Amino acid sequence: MPKLEKIVSRDVDFAKWYTSIIINAELISYSPLKGTIILKPYAYSIWENIQEILNKYFKLKQIQNLYMPLLIPKSIFNKEKELIEGFSPECLTVTKIGDKKLEEDLIIRPTSEVLFGYFFSKELQTYKDLPMKYNQWANVFRWEKTTRPFLRTTEFLWQEGHTIHETPKEANEFAIEMINLYKDFFIKNLSIPVFMGKKTDYEKFSGAADTYTIETLMHDGQALQSGTSHYFADIFSKTFKIKFLDKNNVMQYPYYTSWGVSTRILGAIIMTHSDDNGLILPFDIAPIQIMIVTFNFDSKLIEYANKIKKQLKNYRIEISYSKKSFSYKRFESEIKGIPLRIDIGNQEIKSESVIIFRRDVSKKILIKVNNLQNEIKNIIDNYKINLYNIANNNNKKRIAKVLSFNEYKKLLSKGNYLILVPFCCKIKCEIEIKNETQTNSRCIISENIITEKCFKCNSSNSKWVYFARAY
Amino acid sequence: MPKLEKIVSRDVDFAKWYTSIIINAELISYSPLKGTIILKPYAYSIWENIQEILNKYFKLKQIQNLYMPLLIPKSIFNKEKELIEGFSPECLTVTKIGDKKLEEDLIIRPTSEVLFGYFFSKELQTYKDLPMKYNQWANVFRWEKTTRPFLRTTEFLWQEGHTIHETPKEANEFAIEMINLYKDFFIKNLSIPVFMGKKTDYEKFSGAADTYTIETLMHDGQALQSGTSHYFADIFSKTFKIKFLDKNNVMQYPYYTSWGVSTRILGAIIMTHSDDNGLILPFDIAPIQIMIVTFNFDSKLIEYANKIKKQLKNYRIEISYSKKSFSYKRFESEIKGIPLRIDIGNQEIKSESVIIFRRDVSKKILIKVNNLQNEIKNIIDNYKINLYNIANNNNKKRIAKVLSFNEYKKLLSKGNYLILVPFCCKIKCEIEIKNETQTNSRCIISENIITEKCFKCNSSNSKWVYFARAY
Repeated sequence: MPKLEKIVSRDVDFAKWYTSIIINAELISYSPLKGTIILKPYAYSIWENIQEILNKYFKLKQIQNLYMPLLIPKSIFNKEKELIEGFSPECLTVTKIGDKKLEEDLIIRPTSEVLFGYFFSKELQTYKDLPMKYNQWANVFRWEKTTRPFLRTTEFLWQEGHTIHETPKEANEFAIEMINLYKDFFIKNLSIPVFMGKKTDYEKFSGAADTYTIETLMHDGQALQSGTSHYFADIFSKTFKIKFLDKNNVMQYPYYTSWGVSTRILGAIIMTHSDDNGLILPFDIAPIQIMIVTFNFDSKLIEYANKIKKQLKNYRIEISYSKKSFSYKRFESEIKGIPLRIDIGNQEIKSESVIIFRRDVSKKILIKVNNLQNEIKNIIDNYKINLYNIANNNNKKRIAKVLSFNEYKKLLSKGNYLILVPFCCKIKCEIEIKNETQTNSRCIISENIITEKCFKCNSSNSKWVYFARAY
Repeated sequence: MPKLEKIVSRDVDFAKWYTSIIINAELISYSPLKGTIILKPYAYSIWENIQEILNKYFKLKQIQNLYMPLLIPKSIFNKEKELIEGFSPECLTVTKIGDKKLEEDLIIRPTSEVLFGYFFSKELQTYKDLPMKYNQWANVFRWEKTTRPFLRTTEFLWQEGHTIHETPKEANEFAIEMINLYKDFFIKNLSIPVFMGKKTDYEKFSGAADTYTIETLMHDGQALQSGTSHYFADIFSKTFKIKFLDKNNVMQYPYYTSWGVSTRILGAIIMTHSDDNGLILPFDIAPIQIMIVTFNFDSKLIEYANKIKKQLKNYRIEISYSKKSFSYKRFESEIKGIPLRIDIGNQEIKSESVIIFRRDVSKKILIKVNNLQNEIKNIIDNYKINLYNIANNNNKKRIAKVLSFNEYKKLLSKGNYLILVPFCCKIKCEIEIKNETQTNSRCIISENIITEKCFKCNSSNSKWVYFARAY
């Protein structure tokens, strides 16, 4: 394997720190095509764990997995005009087989509303078939000029859910239900604080009636759009002639939602939790949750390690059999962000205890073996809460509330902030703000019209909206 | 959902029977691009179960999952000449982003040896890093003129494993180990009999030194290549400059293997096990292994059903809450190939028993509830063996051994057979056989030179080889 590199300090150069974390923790390798990355086993395993958890949540909502083709004939893709306008400049297009030109260009999916629309139109017959709730785990493609591993790449992995419902109310509520599912997942399973709300018209998904979003705040004060859920009303149903016979035998168009999260989550995990010693992984998605490191490979130590492993077999626990030195292995477990490490030497056998190293606080705890299962459970609970609290406390330093554009610009001149402002939500204002400050709206946190006037144009009918620079 | 169609009889029209099975069992839906299919939830769930089992097997062999990009710059792809010659006429090529022409064409992976080669060359340093064993679950693309769901489609899902080893012996042995893993999976988990061997030079994978294969025999007597494992010697290592320092500090090239199975497995399952009443699924990969159907929704019946479900909670078991009629639901469970169905009426509650319908034999068995777990276990074991035996007995009618080309042609004039012949393994003979009979070699079953002479050219140095028409 390539040698470890020095981790650049997070406070000195955040971008370089990010790169040195993903390389040293063996998350990715660069591929020959700029803007695409190889997800190495450690990163892919995190993604598999994310999939497992989300699949369980989806199943509780009667969402079924399926698989759609990657390629969409251009004529079908072009049916949905707004979607096209949003995506076509980024669309990778297949025009040849070998050296032969195809009769019709094929679009590589940037997202699959078009094919789901086509599918629903064939599947749906009557109201008894509704709701239909499908999800797929897939690779999607959007050509990007500036790329950064996990955050913005030409190819990325994601899940995209697509549903149709009998009424606008049910569909809109389901879109909100899904953004809440993502929020809970981020908080509970990833220990990442979340800012939830609705996108402005300028920022919403091409073709959607409403886009709900969860935004997360990275350690450098930049925001990251981390999951979205779209309510499309009956726009797609009309475009793709998705229809059903309702209870009164009248033909109706169903109401459509779609929602997704991607491997971008790995970027959020790194930039929320990690530090100058390496990655720090949320417990639930760590490929190795507990690593046992023995001082050497004496049979007594290995036997003891196996006894511990057996007691904790409900976790992803491994004994390190690597031939590297004791200290190197401890160092490596920190770089890789393994939540708990159990160090075992002869001293621990004698005292019937283990030393547990917690990656979140970089501290060791001595624990008696006779109550190990309970103690570990408490430590894990505490680990999760603590990771969340660290992130939340860090966020507090980077969140502000201002009422005027002057204050806003002054604050941004000091650094990156997630800034709550009264905003009119008009596209014209938003473009001006973006051009002048390189920030944009992240989410409208409530639909309530407030007494404060728009921080940009001073008009009434404003709402509280978060703005930030974003990845 | 679209209505059920009549299942065409298997013996009347095998191709139509196949199509009516996949449509009626809700396995696929057609997509707007010819040659690509939508894997509906039932088919995708079977694929997920296959993934889960194979992932467990791979893990036991220290194989790690990762993910490679889909797109390969043409200049990199063209490095490996033999591979190119084999695949380039089928390669889908991206030439544009939106309306802008790309500087370099991008090949959509037909297989990923090229990127793994690139990756290994960056990762490998010394003999201590070896062996490296990786796998990916991915979509791959080969443009096909004639397509058939699962068997031959432009896009398909598969797993492709890629490994490098210190010595030719270790690599070759590992390639054989993997084909044996597939064989065991087919027999044990899918109840499908397997014919294992080596491909002839004419049939082996482009660029491989040796290709090992498992072939299965479909109900109509045509063969299906169902899994392959390739030994590449150091061909790829030299092309992609994959090198390592050996124990004596000398630079060496490692030895390469790759191996894969695909969603074609679903085709093998259908054409091996299913009948005129619908799909018959192997127990281990069935999305629903046991379906409970109650005569109606009386609380007493539902309570009893839940009691049964709880006892059998280690299986994928479901109570049917569909509002359709009792008889329709039983009919549907047969079409969908659900291995065991438990029918519950008041009579069963009274006698503290259940009626179990076995899909493989189409028979009902009355079982006392007090010994349900053990009885079910026995039934499942028997179900698996019986499915295998049915397939194996059917195969016997379709396997033959002949010594001359005249006999061979005579036999084929009667129908499709898997025919064991003494064969010289020369490309010239194989092409002539193919042109004259539309059959080709499936596998060399042993490397032993036999006394019998080639059934085609009468030359010595022949081996026993299976020939057949194939999908």
